[in-house]
Amino acid sequence: MSKRKHRPKRENLLTSPGTLTYIGPDIQLKTKVRKLQYNEKFYTNEAVTSLAECSINTTLEPHITWLDVDGIHETSLIGKIGQIYHLHPLILEDIVNTEHKPKLEVYDSSYIFLTLKMLHVDSEEPLEISAEHVSFVAGNDYLISFQEERSDDIFNPVIDRLKASVGKTRRNGTDYLVFALMDIIVDNYFLVLEKFGEKLDTIEESIISGSKKHSLNDLYGLKRELTFVRRAIWPLRDMINQLIREDNSLISKDVVPYYRDLYDHTMQAVDTIDSYRELLASLADVHLSTISNRMNAVMKTLTIFSAIFMPLTFIVGVYGMNFDNMPELRHHNGYFYTWGVMIIVTIGMILYFKLKKWM
Amino acid sequence: MSKRKHRPKRENLLTSPGTLTYIGPDIQLKTKVRKLQYNEKFYTNEAVTSLAECSINTTLEPHITWLDVDGIHETSLIGKIGQIYHLHPLILEDIVNTEHKPKLEVYDSSYIFLTLKMLHVDSEEPLEISAEHVSFVAGNDYLISFQEERSDDIFNPVIDRLKASVGKTRRNGTDYLVFALMDIIVDNYFLVLEKFGEKLDTIEESIISGSKKHSLNDLYGLKRELTFVRRAIWPLRDMINQLIREDNSLISKDVVPYYRDLYDHTMQAVDTIDSYRELLASLADVHLSTISNRMNAVMKTLTIFSAIFMPLTFIVGVYGMNFDNMPELRHHNGYFYTWGVMIIVTIGMILYFKLKKWM
Amino acid sequence: MSKRKHRPKRENLLTSPGTLTYIGPDIQLKTKVRKLQYNEKFYTNEAVTSLAECSINTTLEPHITWLDVDGIHETSLIGKIGQIYHLHPLILEDIVNTEHKPKLEVYDSSYIFLTLKMLHVDSEEPLEISAEHVSFVAGNDYLISFQEERSDDIFNPVIDRLKASVGKTRRNGTDYLVFALMDIIVDNYFLVLEKFGEKLDTIEESIISGSKKHSLNDLYGLKRELTFVRRAIWPLRDMINQLIREDNSLISKDVVPYYRDLYDHTMQAVDTIDSYRELLASLADVHLSTISNRMNAVMKTLTIFSAIFMPLTFIVGVYGMNFDNMPELRHHNGYFYTWGVMIIVTIGMILYFKLKKWM
Amino acid sequence: MSKRKHRPKRENLLTSPGTLTYIGPDIQLKTKVRKLQYNEKFYTNEAVTSLAECSINTTLEPHITWLDVDGIHETSLIGKIGQIYHLHPLILEDIVNTEHKPKLEVYDSSYIFLTLKMLHVDSEEPLEISAEHVSFVAGNDYLISFQEERSDDIFNPVIDRLKASVGKTRRNGTDYLVFALMDIIVDNYFLVLEKFGEKLDTIEESIISGSKKHSLNDLYGLKRELTFVRRAIWPLRDMINQLIREDNSLISKDVVPYYRDLYDHTMQAVDTIDSYRELLASLADVHLSTISNRMNAVMKTLTIFSAIFMPLTFIVGVYGMNFDNMPELRHHNGYFYTWGVMIIVTIGMILYFKLKKWM
Amino acid sequence: MSKRKHRPKRENLLTSPGTLTYIGPDIQLKTKVRKLQYNEKFYTNEAVTSLAECSINTTLEPHITWLDVDGIHETSLIGKIGQIYHLHPLILEDIVNTEHKPKLEVYDSSYIFLTLKMLHVDSEEPLEISAEHVSFVAGNDYLISFQEERSDDIFNPVIDRLKASVGKTRRNGTDYLVFALMDIIVDNYFLVLEKFGEKLDTIEESIISGSKKHSLNDLYGLKRELTFVRRAIWPLRDMINQLIREDNSLISKDVVPYYRDLYDHTMQAVDTIDSYRELLASLADVHLSTISNRMNAVMKTLTIFSAIFMPLTFIVGVYGMNFDNMPELRHHNGYFYTWGVMIIVTIGMILYFKLKKWM
Repeated sequence: MSKRKHRPKRENLLTSPGTLTYIGPDIQLKTKVRKLQYNEKFYTNEAVTSLAECSINTTLEPHITWLDVDGIHETSLIGKIGQIYHLHPLILEDIVNTEHKPKLEVYDSSYIFLTLKMLHVDSEEPLEISAEHVSFVAGNDYLISFQEERSDDIFNPVIDRLKASVGKTRRNGTDYLVFALMDIIVDNYFLVLEKFGEKLDTIEESIISGSKKHSLNDLYGLKRELTFVRRAIWPLRDMINQLIREDNSLISKDVVPYYRDLYDHTMQAVDTIDSYRELLASLADVHLSTISNRMNAVMKTLTIFSAIFMPLTFIVGVYGMNFDNMPELRHHNGYFYTWGVMIIVTIGMILYFKLKKWM
Repeated sequence: MSKRKHRPKRENLLTSPGTLTYIGPDIQLKTKVRKLQYNEKFYTNEAVTSLAECSINTTLEPHITWLDVDGIHETSLIGKIGQIYHLHPLILEDIVNTEHKPKLEVYDSSYIFLTLKMLHVDSEEPLEISAEHVSFVAGNDYLISFQEERSDDIFNPVIDRLKASVGKTRRNGTDYLVFALMDIIVDNYFLVLEKFGEKLDTIEESIISGSKKHSLNDLYGLKRELTFVRRAIWPLRDMINQLIREDNSLISKDVVPYYRDLYDHTMQAVDTIDSYRELLASLADVHLSTISNRMNAVMKTLTIFSAIFMPLTFIVGVYGMNFDNMPELRHHNGYFYTWGVMIIVTIGMILYFKLKKWM
Repeated sequence: MSKRKHRPKRENLLTSPGTLTYIGPDIQLKTKVRKLQYNEKFYTNEAVTSLAECSINTTLEPHITWLDVDGIHETSLIGKIGQIYHLHPLILEDIVNTEHKPKLEVYDSSYIFLTLKMLHVDSEEPLEISAEHVSFVAGNDYLISFQEERSDDIFNPVIDRLKASVGKTRRNGTDYLVFALMDIIVDNYFLVLEKFGEKLDTIEESIISGSKKHSLNDLYGLKRELTFVRRAIWPLRDMINQLIREDNSLISKDVVPYYRDLYDHTMQAVDTIDSYRELLASLADVHLSTISNRMNAVMKTLTIFSAIFMPLTFIVGVYGMNFDNMPELRHHNGYFYTWGVMIIVTIGMILYFKLKKWM
Repeated sequence: MSKRKHRPKRENLLTSPGTLTYIGPDIQLKTKVRKLQYNEKFYTNEAVTSLAECSINTTLEPHITWLDVDGIHETSLIGKIGQIYHLHPLILEDIVNTEHKPKLEVYDSSYIFLTLKMLHVDSEEPLEISAEHVSFVAGNDYLISFQEERSDDIFNPVIDRLKASVGKTRRNGTDYLVFALMDIIVDNYFLVLEKFGEKLDTIEESIISGSKKHSLNDLYGLKRELTFVRRAIWPLRDMINQLIREDNSLISKDVVPYYRDLYDHTMQAVDTIDSYRELLASLADVHLSTISNRMNAVMKTLTIFSAIFMPLTFIVGVYGMNFDNMPELRHHNGYFYTWGVMIIVTIGMILYFKLKKWM
Repeated sequence: MSKRKHRPKRENLLTSPGTLTYIGPDIQLKTKVRKLQYNEKFYTNEAVTSLAECSINTTLEPHITWLDVDGIHETSLIGKIGQIYHLHPLILEDIVNTEHKPKLEVYDSSYIFLTLKMLHVDSEEPLEISAEHVSFVAGNDYLISFQEERSDDIFNPVIDRLKASVGKTRRNGTDYLVFALMDIIVDNYFLVLEKFGEKLDTIEESIISGSKKHSLNDLYGLKRELTFVRRAIWPLRDMINQLIREDNSLISKDVVPYYRDLYDHTMQAVDTIDSYRELLASLADVHLSTISNRMNAVMKTLTIFSAIFMPLTFIVGVYGMNFDNMPELRHHNGYFYTWGVMIIVTIGMILYFKLKKWM
């Protein structure tokens, strides 16, 4: 289990507020920035090599500019992009603070800031989930997306759709683009939750059948990861709700149903998590009761053995005594009668335990 | 226990929003569509064979059109019906998404969309419940109902009432028709809950009487199904409440009391489920305490046997020793005196345990 | 324990809404209807023998008419009374549905409908509570009360007060009359709760003192009845609150303090129930810990016996061996020395266990 | 533990509402009534001997009249005072109903009625708390305080302050006087809570150190008393809050900060109780785990003894057999070799248990 | 574990409200007061030696005065400062009451009063946290900060920033200064929480691996400290929220985002605490299940030993009997056959336990 989750954010403590401090894992790669420009008529997608290219190209006809920043460990670069787009220093702080929880902030209705978590399955056995810190700054005609440097770009499906045809994404503004990107992230939650579902199925079957393959530690580990996932998803609910209700000019009326749909999906994810948690708690109870039952079975075995052999051992002990005068010892069939008594005692005991349903 | 419940919805992930993807069980049957037209004066009920017949017949005098679509696995058909009635693509997505939880949506006060769950008892031993995904789209003069393809049509009682006489259903608009259909579904919940009630009675009796026929696994299975049922019913509460309060022209003032009645019934169902859950928790406690008590009984038996036979075995061991000089062995009645001592020890032990109330 | 509580309401399922179906216990008696008419100047109380007598006598000077219907199993009679007073069919359905939970409904501010539960102690050992379904329909100058047919009329004290003198009840309108009747029902809750209190005292004493007379089953049964009682009382809180706040002309300002007082009493009843429930949970914990402690004591006894007699049995076993060359056996005092060693071992063990505080 | 707490109020059931019934402990003493009159210029304090003296002396210059009624068992006297000050009958009922929970009621903004609980430590070992029923009726220029007859008057510090100097109490109106009296009662809560704190410290130390001096019964008793105290204090929070927010002319703006301070103190008391309750729950867990651990230790001891002596007893049993042909028995050093084997077995066992960390 | 936390505040009970009583630890040092004056153009920082210097220097150009009072045990000094700045007596009471929980109060929109807790790690093994009582009174152009006398001044970083350059702190008003000081305190919470995180990691590893180094007592101690920390942080959430929403002229619009950021951090701290608490509860469950499993292992060992050696001891007992006529004893190979039987029994038992997976 990864240690990371027990650590609150750290390095930017006791520095002046607004100081940019990256606290995620060490990364050596250079930040990759792509700039996409499109409207219903044209579409360009180019890698950005100089800061100057980051700004909006005002010489073009009205279009959407999407700046896709892949890597948030070079804080100076982030700071410079922030200056170009006049972003508040506290926003930049949140963009690079990988421990910050999802939130939405609307700045003077000139741009909105969203940060949320992309979930990745790091390991399947045991199940380990990590969160990628993703942020969006969306103005009227631009969107800047920030993500941690990872091998696979999660936004490729949207880029493909933009490139492929003049569909809903190309026809709509940044509000729909933000939705499309968030939709990918939320859809991905279900892929992660499916892993939990499979795991739970395995553990449930194993516990119900009484096999000892899975222990409370497995349940504990699963619960821990589930709690981690829940904390990543839960704030999304409020964020999307706020986006829908917020009286801002940034989300157009036509796009609202899509956000409402997104809200439903988020709720479904949270619901699924909650039902998994409840299930885990129930399974832990079943597991503990199984242990109790096993202990009971062990105790019964012990008791049955003791109750059968203690009297027998006593009987043979009696005739192992060395008294001069023990008439039974002299009896010709004494030994065989003794065996008879012992067999009767044994049968009696067995019947007694059968009666008590211990055998 | 069915695996299905641990899986969040799946196939429509990572596709463009608004894409119709059916994710329920595989079905080979063709979708059946019936069209009912009625007002106070006439009533027709015919199977629809072409898409053209699906639209509202405007040549007739004012009437209600009820399109009853039986089967949601042919997504292309659903899509076409959606086009005829100008339904939002996201609604169609929800109609075919059998994992979607119950919800109500009002579109521009031109039509309302409702989706809820019909519950079926798949198996009685162990109790297994499945949910059928049912949706309604209700405009001013039309209702389209969508349900999964199942052998028995749950709406037959309403169809019979429509056909039989010019009663409340024929006299009222689509608002009353929606109520009548929802009423059937909610009434059905009580039939399902009754199964739970019977099961609980059996398990309760068995646990209270200390019989070992039922285990924590049974309680766990029942709780799991109950949670499933609760999740299907719970959102209905808010939906109906919203319908009553909503200031839309679709629910007329005369019909509101019926929805209020429906709300009461839904509340009663939820209440019953909650009291069952509480009962299950209490029964689990009683069950565990029964196990504890049994363990106690086993331990006492073991202790009593040990405490009686250990001293006796020791005594006979003493006189099994081979010392040259053991005066008792030579005593003529030594053997019989030893028996006397052993009987006294045994009686003493029994009295001791009687005193301690262990016997 | 009565099976009844695990059954949701049943017979009126799948019938057209508004159909009257009585689902309480079978009753052979005829419904008794009394009509009381009074104002400050006169008071009459007569048994009603024909439906015509049920309506308000408009030839008299302004007065209050109280129709006391004793028995709700003759649904046709209830239906006819409903027609005379123009009651909504859904109200009549609720009046005869003995499983309906308490609720208040205000109809067009022309009359209010109240249904609540009178509690009866059916059995004291074990404590069993049953609920009588009582409903009130109160208009400006009339009150109709419905109750299940039982041997004793719970409203007698109010009838006596009406008859006896021109007191508060005679001077005030139906609002005060409804209060007076509800007050009797709520006061009765405390008599029922007192039974629980006495029972709890007995069980508490028995569990604290460690006596085995009461088991978890008793606590479970008590909790079950308490839950039943809570579900009967809890909705009253909201109902009375709504009556006080509701801006209707039916509750006059002078009577509001009485309803506020009633609200306080209901709250006190709910509070008492909640504290009983908490107590029950604590007692269950104490009970389980007592079982654990007893098991501990049993185990200690076993361990002490084993630890004392096992070494002794070993020692005597040693000198029961038949080796040719065992010098101790030949020693003249070997036997007595052996006894010495055994006594020392025993004393040592006892001291060890005293030290460990096991004895 | 006192039985009293399991009894809901009783005697005034089924009587006409507004009937005064005292239900506290039997008291033989006569009610003592004191009348204090003061303003910034004068102060008088006299015992009241006739009902006539109870009313406000209108011949004096404007002043505050404080009627301190010590004893609420003489209901006829309370009723007469109520008549003089025109108090609502339901208020009088609440004044003498010692089981009534704390509440605030504002009557027509002409006077406010407050009832709360003074807590007394009846016994320290075990800790037993009792509640004294205290009520205030505060008009613009008068305050009537009612308390149960007890040996020490809790309001003496305020009386002393009134008498001593023209301080805040003398300069302000009844609103400040009510505050000062409530402040004394709330301050007293902390003295009571301190007793709980001390008790908890003792029990915590004893449980953590594993001493058996305190059992779950002690925790249970403490929790029970704590619940009793919480129920007495909890409603105060809402009451004071309501007093602050209430737009009445009775609490002047200058006095509001004092009530806010009182609110803070009440919250602190409730917080302290809640943290004590949490602590009690944790301690119960620790206690149960200690019992489990002890049981474990007992079981290990038993197992170690059995595992060492069973093989030894078997070995000596072997050479106690009487077969004619047992070569070892004839061996000259057989006996000593046997001892060697037994010592090796014993050491092996001990090492095994050391390895398993059971010893 | 420190006793202190089980004691509610004490000494100022039963004194007149508004009386200053210091109840923290005894301190001999003299209170240190520093006065900082600054605006964008100048900055002075001087130790205050006389009360007269405490007031605002009105001869200077407009500037911010920050009075940093280090030590709150000299209540008379606090009282005098209060008089100079016209502070309400109840505020002064709260400043010196070290047990008061965090709160915000706005006085007539002329100044705001804030009190919160600085957390210190007193001991790392076991982890012990103590709280320092810190208060702020902020007017338009002055801030007075009060803290308990401790060796290290927590506000040094802010003083350094003020002195170093004309940064954000120097340019803004007291609202930003209050934020900067609160920010330091909140940042410090994360340093404290990190200690908990480390501790939890150690305990988690130890419990999961089944090592016995940590017990429930450690978990209990940690939970206790965590509860203490939570109670210190929790009220901050509401306080900051109130500051943001409050329509006062004291917090300027530009500074609001910083407070919003502070709010986020506080929420994150509370979230972290809550996830730690959940973790602790889960770990306690795992710990208890580990104990159960160990007990199970012990019981199995005992049962296996008993089940193997009891039959063997019985067999050798049989041939230790002294009957005259025991044919087996005379058989030449009887002894060796007996060994054969015993070996078969032993192997059978072992196979049986292997089958039952007990070995």
